[in-house]
Amino acid sequence: MKSYNVAVVGVTGMVGQKMLQVLAELEFPVNNLYPMASKRSAGKEIVFNGKPYVVQELCDEAFDQEIDIALFSAGGDTSARFSPVAASKGVIVIDNSSAFRMDPSVPLVVPEVNPEDLDWHKNIIANPNCSTIQAVVALKPLYDAFGINRIVYSTYQAVSGSGVKGYSDLENGIKGEENTFYPHPIAYNCLPHIDSFLDNGYTKEEMKMVNETQKILHDDSLRITATTVRVPVFYSHSESINVETKKAFELDAVRHLFTQAPGIILQDDPTNDLYPLARVAENTDEVYVGRVRRDFSVDNGLNLWVVADNIRKGAASNAVQIAFELIKRGLI
Amino acid sequence: MKSYNVAVVGVTGMVGQKMLQVLAELEFPVNNLYPMASKRSAGKEIVFNGKPYVVQELCDEAFDQEIDIALFSAGGDTSARFSPVAASKGVIVIDNSSAFRMDPSVPLVVPEVNPEDLDWHKNIIANPNCSTIQAVVALKPLYDAFGINRIVYSTYQAVSGSGVKGYSDLENGIKGEENTFYPHPIAYNCLPHIDSFLDNGYTKEEMKMVNETQKILHDDSLRITATTVRVPVFYSHSESINVETKKAFELDAVRHLFTQAPGIILQDDPTNDLYPLARVAENTDEVYVGRVRRDFSVDNGLNLWVVADNIRKGAASNAVQIAFELIKRGLI
Repeated sequence: MKSYNVAVVGVTGMVGQKMLQVLAELEFPVNNLYPMASKRSAGKEIVFNGKPYVVQELCDEAFDQEIDIALFSAGGDTSARFSPVAASKGVIVIDNSSAFRMDPSVPLVVPEVNPEDLDWHKNIIANPNCSTIQAVVALKPLYDAFGINRIVYSTYQAVSGSGVKGYSDLENGIKGEENTFYPHPIAYNCLPHIDSFLDNGYTKEEMKMVNETQKILHDDSLRITATTVRVPVFYSHSESINVETKKAFELDAVRHLFTQAPGIILQDDPTNDLYPLARVAENTDEVYVGRVRRDFSVDNGLNLWVVADNIRKGAASNAVQIAFELIKRGLI
Repeated sequence: MKSYNVAVVGVTGMVGQKMLQVLAELEFPVNNLYPMASKRSAGKEIVFNGKPYVVQELCDEAFDQEIDIALFSAGGDTSARFSPVAASKGVIVIDNSSAFRMDPSVPLVVPEVNPEDLDWHKNIIANPNCSTIQAVVALKPLYDAFGINRIVYSTYQAVSGSGVKGYSDLENGIKGEENTFYPHPIAYNCLPHIDSFLDNGYTKEEMKMVNETQKILHDDSLRITATTVRVPVFYSHSESINVETKKAFELDAVRHLFTQAPGIILQDDPTNDLYPLARVAENTDEVYVGRVRRDFSVDNGLNLWVVADNIRKGAASNAVQIAFELIKRGLI
């Protein structure tokens, strides 16, 4: 099998570290690894597949090296600055930031949902927001079978979505120490505030869920609203998703779809206490779907509870799965 | 001012203890206090307003004493068994259990919302479910001003809603110990499971929110669905509430209503990080409303974030407020 030279940009961050772990675990065919980070972290040693590597400083010239794929997870500003440079030098960038997600010339891809969008990439491919990825994996089979009119999202999001700083705030808060990152204590609290606020009263995170869901499902007519909330959980986002389909459905047919759909594990046996849980999803790549119930308050209404590891399926694993899909489709 | 002989049934439980605290703090005119509990707790000493009292065993004969009001919080079975006995002996029972809530002959009352229902009580008055109380306090001004077509609830509920056992599970879970009450770890997890499951796939808690909202607002045509979730928070329930009103509204008018409505504190200045928080609501009697936003996905759509202390406004304080309202209306 052919192997590839892979750069991981932002390799010392939480998602960057997870990218290394997932590349190794999923046995991505890595030839040479190019770990990169900001000047501050350059020179540090990281380990991949049992071998030590020295972290390179991210700079334009770094992409003159023989790199096939660069997995970026170093924040939006860094991506905006360096992804086009890498792309112009023939590197295929899979970018975990929000910098290019809504750029119409950049595909926004979840491999289980819209792999065909990879076919028109121009060397930058955007990895969607964590909370969107798991939602669209769950919604795609419903969308195909019944159509979707409207979605109401309420999320229960883990602190690891804020990286090491959010994680530390929860760890420290549990010990009775002050927050340094979130504006309010996250220990034993729910913060209806993820990313910054916009003029319309929504957070950026909420609007990401609205806009990215439409883009990934190629349907600007989808009506969507979202309330996104940080909860004192370390890993895995949970989501209460209320859906109105276009066509009528039977619940058994819905459950059957979930058993057949790629990337989904149906956990829906509530009388035996089986439903998706953050701590069960942790460190896995699947999207867990359960609490499948009819919403009697509207025609064709459905309630779902959807959980996935936000750092793996919501970030690192989805990026690596995109890389695999590029190989499968002969695009690299 | 006239004072009243008050029994607190289930006085050693978490809500019973809070009832004592609230009676004292709100200066309810208590003449004699009759603390009652099961045989197991009888004989214990409790303190009210600085004075010690011995806990009496709950039995039929206990209500032969000179008691005006009995605040019950000892579970549904105990209420079902003893509330009718107390009521038949002329005691006005304010019952915190679910035993009588949906009984058409029993008023289900939140004083800010439907105090007039007290007028037809027959010595048993039901205190609504914690998650319902805070929701209807927030929804009532909207209902009156604009009408409501449909409500989608997603809740973030504190472990104290399960009493001491739930509280201990979170305390112990944080220390790395096993749960003994919840079927799954509650530390760093979200459990979409409150109370037991019904044949329709909903939990009893979810159906309580549906049915009790309709009863309190006197509107069986209200279309409601709910997903109720236990989160690792000690006190205060948070709720993401999506509402469709009948008439059009302006957001400023909605916010103004919340500033005028009884029992509500509007906290809605997100750019200054002001929105309702569980840890701010803790140990207060108000319902906090914020994240007031238009839901663009539907006509007359509105999103709210509503938080209140589940043990105080969601239980003990609402019961004591009912007792005050009985006095105010000359019903006792």
